Amino acid sequence: MNVQSYNPTSGDWQSTDFAETAAVEVADICEKAHRAAQVLADFPLVWRAALLDTIAESLEADAAFIIALADAETGLGEGRLTGELKRTCFQFRFFADVVRDGGFLEASIDHPYDSPMGPLPDLRRQLEPLGVVGVFGASNFPFAFSVPGGDTASALAAGCSVVIKAHPAHPRTSFATFTSIERAARELKAPEGTVNLLFGLEAGVALVEDPHVAAVGFTGSYGAGRALFDRAQARDVPIPFYGELGSVNPLVVSRAAAAERAVTLGEGLVGSVTLGSGQFCTKPGLLFVPLGADGDALVAAAVAALEKGAGATMLSAPLRDRFEEGVTNLGDVAGVRELARSSRSASDAGSFAVLYETDVATLQDRHESLMTEYFGALAVVVRYTSLNEVLAAIDSLEPALTFTVQVSDDDVDAPALLAAGVKKAGRVIVNAFPTGVGVSWSMHHGGPHPAATSSLHTSVGATSIRRWLRPVSYQGVPAVWLPASLRDDNPLGIPQRVDGTLRV
Amino acid sequence: MNVQSYNPTSGDWQSTDFAETAAVEVADICEKAHRAAQVLADFPLVWRAALLDTIAESLEADAAFIIALADAETGLGEGRLTGELKRTCFQFRFFADVVRDGGFLEASIDHPYDSPMGPLPDLRRQLEPLGVVGVFGASNFPFAFSVPGGDTASALAAGCSVVIKAHPAHPRTSFATFTSIERAARELKAPEGTVNLLFGLEAGVALVEDPHVAAVGFTGSYGAGRALFDRAQARDVPIPFYGELGSVNPLVVSRAAAAERAVTLGEGLVGSVTLGSGQFCTKPGLLFVPLGADGDALVAAAVAALEKGAGATMLSAPLRDRFEEGVTNLGDVAGVRELARSSRSASDAGSFAVLYETDVATLQDRHESLMTEYFGALAVVVRYTSLNEVLAAIDSLEPALTFTVQVSDDDVDAPALLAAGVKKAGRVIVNAFPTGVGVSWSMHHGGPHPAATSSLHTSVGATSIRRWLRPVSYQGVPAVWLPASLRDDNPLGIPQRVDGTLRV
Repeated sequence: MNVQSYNPTSGDWQSTDFAETAAVEVADICEKAHRAAQVLADFPLVWRAALLDTIAESLEADAAFIIALADAETGLGEGRLTGELKRTCFQFRFFADVVRDGGFLEASIDHPYDSPMGPLPDLRRQLEPLGVVGVFGASNFPFAFSVPGGDTASALAAGCSVVIKAHPAHPRTSFATFTSIERAARELKAPEGTVNLLFGLEAGVALVEDPHVAAVGFTGSYGAGRALFDRAQARDVPIPFYGELGSVNPLVVSRAAAAERAVTLGEGLVGSVTLGSGQFCTKPGLLFVPLGADGDALVAAAVAALEKGAGATMLSAPLRDRFEEGVTNLGDVAGVRELARSSRSASDAGSFAVLYETDVATLQDRHESLMTEYFGALAVVVRYTSLNEVLAAIDSLEPALTFTVQVSDDDVDAPALLAAGVKKAGRVIVNAFPTGVGVSWSMHHGGPHPAATSSLHTSVGATSIRRWLRPVSYQGVPAVWLPASLRDDNPLGIPQRVDGTLRV
Repeated sequence: MNVQSYNPTSGDWQSTDFAETAAVEVADICEKAHRAAQVLADFPLVWRAALLDTIAESLEADAAFIIALADAETGLGEGRLTGELKRTCFQFRFFADVVRDGGFLEASIDHPYDSPMGPLPDLRRQLEPLGVVGVFGASNFPFAFSVPGGDTASALAAGCSVVIKAHPAHPRTSFATFTSIERAARELKAPEGTVNLLFGLEAGVALVEDPHVAAVGFTGSYGAGRALFDRAQARDVPIPFYGELGSVNPLVVSRAAAAERAVTLGEGLVGSVTLGSGQFCTKPGLLFVPLGADGDALVAAAVAALEKGAGATMLSAPLRDRFEEGVTNLGDVAGVRELARSSRSASDAGSFAVLYETDVATLQDRHESLMTEYFGALAVVVRYTSLNEVLAAIDSLEPALTFTVQVSDDDVDAPALLAAGVKKAGRVIVNAFPTGVGVSWSMHHGGPHPAATSSLHTSVGATSIRRWLRPVSYQGVPAVWLPASLRDDNPLGIPQRVDGTLRV
């Protein structure tokens, strides 16, 4: 059966031209990708950078077409998707810069010397591409975290080939963006098999288990991510599996911040919770607000903002149903009360936004219901009495992708709140909202389990390239046989650590 | 029952004062280590460096005592153990330098700017300690890869606390070296629980499964390493498990090298194979030597050197028995013939050195017997006819820690051999022998599975610290609340990447 494409606004299902990829085809594709990877590893950095730049151009050339397709398949709207495509193209160009910079190679040269442990030989080290990378994109960002997303961009930047499993929520968008990438690859004369696309659940499982696949990047739910992680680890040859799995993203409003700007914060919080129908892995899901008049004013502003807003189209009707089931269950929890609910969107996968309120004691008692991530425009306001109470509540939370504090300039509570956040999350944010993940050198998008399956690595930002590289040391290798990146004359002009001293 | 200490030279067993650690005690120890880790994370880098330097001094002060203990428990000899302790102390001081350098923090500062994807906030990133690190040392290096080994040194350098499972082959040495470390920790007023020691197999399993343990370093056999890896991945919260597991370490003598220096190479090979009774994870196990007169001369020199040598004491009688069982099985493989055997050592765990010969066709046919690591002074000479034949043979091998080529200065075969090695191993070596793993900035001691459970990381060298660190991004955090390492004025004087440009 061919893959079906669903329109969450109209509810229409359409058959596509794409068949689900059979397991035997997956094996062929991965073998081809493996051969491509062997060739790509020897292509120069300038070529890799040019490929990434060309992919950005290719996607831009197809912008009108792919944005229209993505809007039909996701209901996210032309405005948001135009911005997301811009981000996606920026991401490819950013990785071209990362490649040209060359610091990612971690080139290091130790000349021979008589150490206190005896004479040491000439030894040089750099990072080399892992091989074939499997990519599982997310439904909620059909560009930035899907086929042309960060995993694909960083893996190509690392010199790997890529086999992408299309997300069933946007098969046409997946194919169209893949076609743009493939055209750029052909233009740059990349080896056949450099980029590849699969359809279907079984193909995805076969991808994780294929012996030619060296690592996998995944963005999605905890359940699916953990199941694939387990398969990746149970292989005869276990491989790194980088799952970015979402989280409740706690946000704490300090007493001083509530006193200073209750209304702005109440409105800002609702904006962050409802952005993209709350379908962000960085959506703040637990909002700690102090008890008392300032907190009351903040909550009142949030309620007014939420009730004024309209519901929105979610990515699919089943996803909407799962969300609304969560809403019902949460409403039934003793000690949790509904504060506000927006109107419902009339589209096929339309839903509403909703805000709950509870206290720290209930949060502690009802861990499972309250510390779960609800994918959709839902947040729980947790009212707290004191700094110590909110710190204890934070301590009981599972780790998260982000941890936000809203504080005042000379807030005495800020240092303790920040320190708690650093222990619990991959990114701590002061006086802003967590939704939105910029592409930059300093971005970390990840965190301790269950936010991600590997707390050591990020799925966004320059250092996400590290996931697809392994070190190799070269001992006593004459200059003529060394990679250019490890030569004393540094012909590539990249950062090198020479005899322990970093040189730029 | 108390832990028993075995003397492989005399065969004596002695009871020690150490009881096996009960599972409930492991939980208490890990909780204490967790509390220590929370405190350690905030200690300044200069303190960490001082701790590492002080541990080196403490071990040196106890040198005579711990070397005598280790000799009794391992039979490795005072000369070798004196050198190993020197290396071990150097390693602590080396990590003090790594900490003072500060580059390992990967500090990065992005100031706010209007990017092509829209305005980006102030964002800063660095690596933070993971928490409690579990360490499983090896039997063959009672100092350098055991209690005071690289895993302990790098984890303390990262700001983690450490829980070490003592190797049953040297419990007294483990306790004595632990005592030296603990004294240094007390001298530096480290929080209680910074370093901890466990005894017993069950305690080791409990350590891997303890919820407070954030990562594990392991050096040892594939079987034990894989079993613990599987447990670490099957936890509710999977944790990184870094197993350095050994390998066959292929070594190729090119036709030109055989023509140039057959006798030197034959003797050198035997030296490398028999070093430490062949009980090195980097022992070259498969020696590819060209057919023909030059190769024959090399083999003749190797045979003469091996027959001249005496056997040596292995680490234990069971290990010796396993080795000799392997010898017998290998001798029975059709197409494999014994070239030479040394005399046998008379000590309790004494054994001999042995050299076999075969050809590439037999190697391909008899994968399982011939591509296995034999822990002991055993190597198989594989005679090859042509560059293409040896390249095909290499391609069929499993990945290894090291890959060595012996070539001539203008060897036409060298580039292809080196390229094959880079794909198969963590360290490629030209015109030297793989035994011996220096502690340096450029060392990579690891490799693709099955050489290690994680090909991304090393267990030796400066970058082994990366295993115990996770990134955290700080968004919009005012200078007053930032870690010193991420401040614009860079008070620690460490390398920082500022707006994408690396500064030293």
